[in-house]
Amino acid sequence: MKYYLGIDLGGTDIKVGVIDEEYKIISKHVTPTLSDRSAEEIVADMAAAGKTVVEKAGLKESDILNVGIGIPGAVNTKTNKVIFAPNLRWKNFDFIPAFRKHWDIPVFLGNDADVAVLAEVYAGAARDYDNAVLLTLGTGVGGGIVLDKKLFTGGGGLGTEPGHIIIVAGGEKCMCGALGCLEAYTSVTGLIREALRIMAEYPDSLLHNLCAGDSSRVNGKIIFDAAKQGDKAANIIISDYVKYLGAGIATFCNTLRPQVILLGGGVSHAGEPLFAPLAEIVNSLYFSPDGGEAPPIIRAELGNDAGIIGAALLSIGL
Amino acid sequence: MKYYLGIDLGGTDIKVGVIDEEYKIISKHVTPTLSDRSAEEIVADMAAAGKTVVEKAGLKESDILNVGIGIPGAVNTKTNKVIFAPNLRWKNFDFIPAFRKHWDIPVFLGNDADVAVLAEVYAGAARDYDNAVLLTLGTGVGGGIVLDKKLFTGGGGLGTEPGHIIIVAGGEKCMCGALGCLEAYTSVTGLIREALRIMAEYPDSLLHNLCAGDSSRVNGKIIFDAAKQGDKAANIIISDYVKYLGAGIATFCNTLRPQVILLGGGVSHAGEPLFAPLAEIVNSLYFSPDGGEAPPIIRAELGNDAGIIGAALLSIGL
Repeated sequence: MKYYLGIDLGGTDIKVGVIDEEYKIISKHVTPTLSDRSAEEIVADMAAAGKTVVEKAGLKESDILNVGIGIPGAVNTKTNKVIFAPNLRWKNFDFIPAFRKHWDIPVFLGNDADVAVLAEVYAGAARDYDNAVLLTLGTGVGGGIVLDKKLFTGGGGLGTEPGHIIIVAGGEKCMCGALGCLEAYTSVTGLIREALRIMAEYPDSLLHNLCAGDSSRVNGKIIFDAAKQGDKAANIIISDYVKYLGAGIATFCNTLRPQVILLGGGVSHAGEPLFAPLAEIVNSLYFSPDGGEAPPIIRAELGNDAGIIGAALLSIGL
Repeated sequence: MKYYLGIDLGGTDIKVGVIDEEYKIISKHVTPTLSDRSAEEIVADMAAAGKTVVEKAGLKESDILNVGIGIPGAVNTKTNKVIFAPNLRWKNFDFIPAFRKHWDIPVFLGNDADVAVLAEVYAGAARDYDNAVLLTLGTGVGGGIVLDKKLFTGGGGLGTEPGHIIIVAGGEKCMCGALGCLEAYTSVTGLIREALRIMAEYPDSLLHNLCAGDSSRVNGKIIFDAAKQGDKAANIIISDYVKYLGAGIATFCNTLRPQVILLGGGVSHAGEPLFAPLAEIVNSLYFSPDGGEAPPIIRAELGNDAGIIGAALLSIGL
């Protein structure tokens, strides 16, 4: 049996896990990142956490073939340097030699959102497909692209930013500074902003009751619950959201030709009331090369484990 | 010296040319497609035109290593079949065996817009770059993508449709049926539609004079001429156009990471009054992985020859 180590480096936690040849996690360990420390201290802890989880799995260090690492920032996949990881204040950081001072093993780097899609394609919801786009609808919108079973990182290996395609020219300001990004409309933040706007126009909406009069408490679950009960404002919010997300998905379909679209993150839990109208709108925007329908839109299934599994898969060269 | 044949198959003309190892056209020939004929007749004429141009170049058939063909439609680059070419009414057409009945030589197929970008990257305006996106701003918006010096045809080889990314969710209806495509706003057709709308709001605009009172005569040149003379309506039209085109270009930059953006087609002749504000808006929308600026936007330079050269390049395996 061959084993690989995956490290999902976040601004809050370092998550490590050992996966086997079937891409299953056989042991897992989490330790705080304490991101205000020096890069050297964080890297030392990453290596130590890796050794801990190997022991936890009942294995020896020499049983691990490679280590893969998901970085919360931009990685140049050609030079293997971390270009910029804002939460860690890393810039042009030559990570691999720093790690190998603590553990001399082949190390592979990728962006954390990128490796998650790799995990879904090899071990998750997209395992029957070769080409997939993952959008993670959380506070922001992350995601990644796999083409022909390989991670797609754009020209020059500088990585893709699926949340920052422009879906409304001259539209809402995004956290990144640009106007009209997919993230500005389809992140949880964007959903709530639109919800508050619509709620103000519908003072009789059920949404106000469900928030107990405090509209700042509105969230995705409340909106979908109200829609289920036939609330007009809630249905407008969802139909706007679907219009924006559908536009973004169509852009990926018409340029990248994925066979499946995966949605992850908080909003993806809405289920059919989100997925059914979304499929309809994407089909209406799909430029079909052969008269066929747009690819299916399904929910990502690995959740938080995607980062560990994806990082480990990266180290296998997938 | 090695020679290759490129055939640019259009709905109106079959353009053929021989190129040498330096990707230069050494002889060229054009014959009408007569697209209401059967596929077999058209293919026979393509082979005959190829043999004519070889003779014209003072070469023998055996001097030609390969033939490359740009198809006006979707080509599956994995199965090498023409999926759909609407102008020719070809559907799932197995082109290569049909051609080789007339000329037994290695044949390579691609989409006509795709091969044009290949020509620009190897022999045109983008020859200093490995990664480029070409947008051809004509009656419609075509284009192609080259990554790491290779034609990018998306997952499964089904081809890309750069004109059909969505830049205004729920926006103007495109010729393809979808709402809000790049083509609906940045084709000549889209430019003129917006111009007529703005002209109606500005009855005193110089544009009316330049059209001699017949607004149906408005075109790109008239709009840019009026803007140069400080006409307010013309400047609004251009600034809207730049907003839409910039949004589309930013989408490509943030996902595909090209090193250069090429513009071709009628509108691209506007020069600096188009390119300068466009660069500014693309920079404001660019998600930079390393703090650098967005890639430069330049004019494609091969014009009609791009189809022949690109098809021939395809046959070299580029």
